[in-house]
Amino acid sequence: MQPRPSTLSAGHRQILSAISREGSRSRTELATLLGLSKATISGLVRDLLAQNILCEQELIFGVGRPSVSLAVRADAASFIGISLQQDPAVLLLTDLHGTVHARVEIPRLSDPEQAIRSLADGILQLREEAGDAAERLSGIGIALPGFVSHDRHTCVTCTALGWRNVNIGTALAERTGLPTWVENDANALILGEQLFGTLRGSPDFSMVFVSHGIGCAHIVNGRLLRGHFGGAGELSHAPVALEGFGALPCRCGNKGCLETVASLLAISNAAHRAGQPTDISTLTALAAKGQPEPLAILHQAGSAMGLATAQLIQMLDPSHVVVMLDSVLHDSVFGHALLKEAETHILHRAGVRTMIHFRDFAAESFAGGAASLAAHYFIFGPEAG
Amino acid sequence: MQPRPSTLSAGHRQILSAISREGSRSRTELATLLGLSKATISGLVRDLLAQNILCEQELIFGVGRPSVSLAVRADAASFIGISLQQDPAVLLLTDLHGTVHARVEIPRLSDPEQAIRSLADGILQLREEAGDAAERLSGIGIALPGFVSHDRHTCVTCTALGWRNVNIGTALAERTGLPTWVENDANALILGEQLFGTLRGSPDFSMVFVSHGIGCAHIVNGRLLRGHFGGAGELSHAPVALEGFGALPCRCGNKGCLETVASLLAISNAAHRAGQPTDISTLTALAAKGQPEPLAILHQAGSAMGLATAQLIQMLDPSHVVVMLDSVLHDSVFGHALLKEAETHILHRAGVRTMIHFRDFAAESFAGGAASLAAHYFIFGPEAG
Repeated sequence: MQPRPSTLSAGHRQILSAISREGSRSRTELATLLGLSKATISGLVRDLLAQNILCEQELIFGVGRPSVSLAVRADAASFIGISLQQDPAVLLLTDLHGTVHARVEIPRLSDPEQAIRSLADGILQLREEAGDAAERLSGIGIALPGFVSHDRHTCVTCTALGWRNVNIGTALAERTGLPTWVENDANALILGEQLFGTLRGSPDFSMVFVSHGIGCAHIVNGRLLRGHFGGAGELSHAPVALEGFGALPCRCGNKGCLETVASLLAISNAAHRAGQPTDISTLTALAAKGQPEPLAILHQAGSAMGLATAQLIQMLDPSHVVVMLDSVLHDSVFGHALLKEAETHILHRAGVRTMIHFRDFAAESFAGGAASLAAHYFIFGPEAG
Repeated sequence: MQPRPSTLSAGHRQILSAISREGSRSRTELATLLGLSKATISGLVRDLLAQNILCEQELIFGVGRPSVSLAVRADAASFIGISLQQDPAVLLLTDLHGTVHARVEIPRLSDPEQAIRSLADGILQLREEAGDAAERLSGIGIALPGFVSHDRHTCVTCTALGWRNVNIGTALAERTGLPTWVENDANALILGEQLFGTLRGSPDFSMVFVSHGIGCAHIVNGRLLRGHFGGAGELSHAPVALEGFGALPCRCGNKGCLETVASLLAISNAAHRAGQPTDISTLTALAAKGQPEPLAILHQAGSAMGLATAQLIQMLDPSHVVVMLDSVLHDSVFGHALLKEAETHILHRAGVRTMIHFRDFAAESFAGGAASLAAHYFIFGPEAG
């Protein structure tokens, strides 16, 4: 059994969800937005002010009466985000605005028993480091490169860790007394963007990341698209290179998957085969100087990403696709080939265009996403999708 | 202004939506399902019985008291579905269970003014033919091969008809006094499946059709995935044949789009170029006899469909993909190549598998989908996605 995440009622959650989605709002605006009476709203807001979850902000426009708008307090709750995306594992403690207050790194262990013990220790260390900021700790989120069960408690499979049905969520919940949620790395990333990022409130957008591997996630109709079996966004195995067209075997058993061409590992492998430096910065610098082999490798990788991005856009029609990339790749032959190939393969329609944005990987992107996973369930409730 | 679709309150609609989604239910089950008191449910149900929208069915299990379950009456409302997918246009009149009561065919006209007049005449003819079944006519749905505005009233672009911003929905609503909804053909088809089909109640599934062109639509988290600009499911321009790999130019201006290889038109064009019969049944029969050119053409077309289906499954992870196909193609090299290529390119996970179903095109599939579009808004309300 997972502990109860909080004592908020459905009504309180409606207020909190609306302000999280839409930004600060007055009581009158909330009443309109939620279709509730002003009296009902005032009662619910009174509770949330008393619990120090909301605060009032006076806004004065022109000469009229000041309008009082309600905002979520940063210190209303704090969360732990754990990224098992790479070794070492990163643990962050954030507040309800997504600001980081403490950080701990620990070795990422593969043995489930050891991993759970080591994470529990890491959490103690993080709480100590965070001091007062760890008060009102309300949940833990874990991001990992694998598939996760419907209830977000169990890692169903994770090739990187060699895990199969590891109920890490319940194990950590029992050790900490905190509700603990597990999510695929890309899904955690996009939930963080939806809650705290510049695309907050956008109902239809996608994120793609190019790292050691490749990940992808979608928000559709305002909700995370997990897929029927929790496997949506499996872009890294999108078939982009056809048989007989230089398709390389993939670790999944197929040939020609996107990650055999476009991941940082694939780029580095291709560079190694060609006798070129395998470091991405050096390789990009050589391509920028016109060296043919680095140019060809990065062009092929970027084109494959562009083709997959076009497939994504045709299939889902998002308003934005955020591509998270090492900063050296943005203004490089990789980035240019990505944009050109995507552009080429998208059906053009007048006045309508999905925006493709490049964004840097921050060191803490995945751990931050994991913390916002816990914040997501705190705000929207354990039944939220 | 569009006429008001019905006088149902939000509460009435909750009952109607729940029974439409879940099937017949008792008052007690509805109270649990909707989180409302039994008294509230009883009051709402009383109104819907009085309006002849619901009926009571007595079910006797074992020796206990008979359980009274509530069902939607077929004759509670009727709808007109119009398909502009092909020439001639097909008009159907259906009841609230999706049963067809009358059918009219009229020429599909390209001039918007003429098309609207001719459709209005066709509607009169259909109502006459339907007789009593046209009582309680509650809405019109129109399915067309193109993009539709967010409010479902305007055809934004339709290449087949040469339309650009034709407000056919409002025009027909004004002439008939009935709420009129316009939708992309594939979207109408999947809404019909969701409301009346064997996948009713499935929250995550996709449909693909292979006809003169190729169409695709998705239900995600129980709702139609329209995309930010209404263009989701644009499978026909998925890049499946790479440059230099025999990629043919597409009417969209790109090369190597799925519809240049796998649509019935593309198959027929390829057969023509190879000096083979262009009729799909004859071509399939020749392939079944081992004729190399028909075999190669149908194999390439089926493989391309399979590759695109794999892309779809990787991106969205639906529980089912329904592929609507001419029946001669099901058990043919086309169908076999489709399944094999999809199978090859899907990442395998233990115990998890998207089902691919082939289904025949019924002559009235699109017009039926269009009628269920009107039924969808009648049940779920004009704000429904």
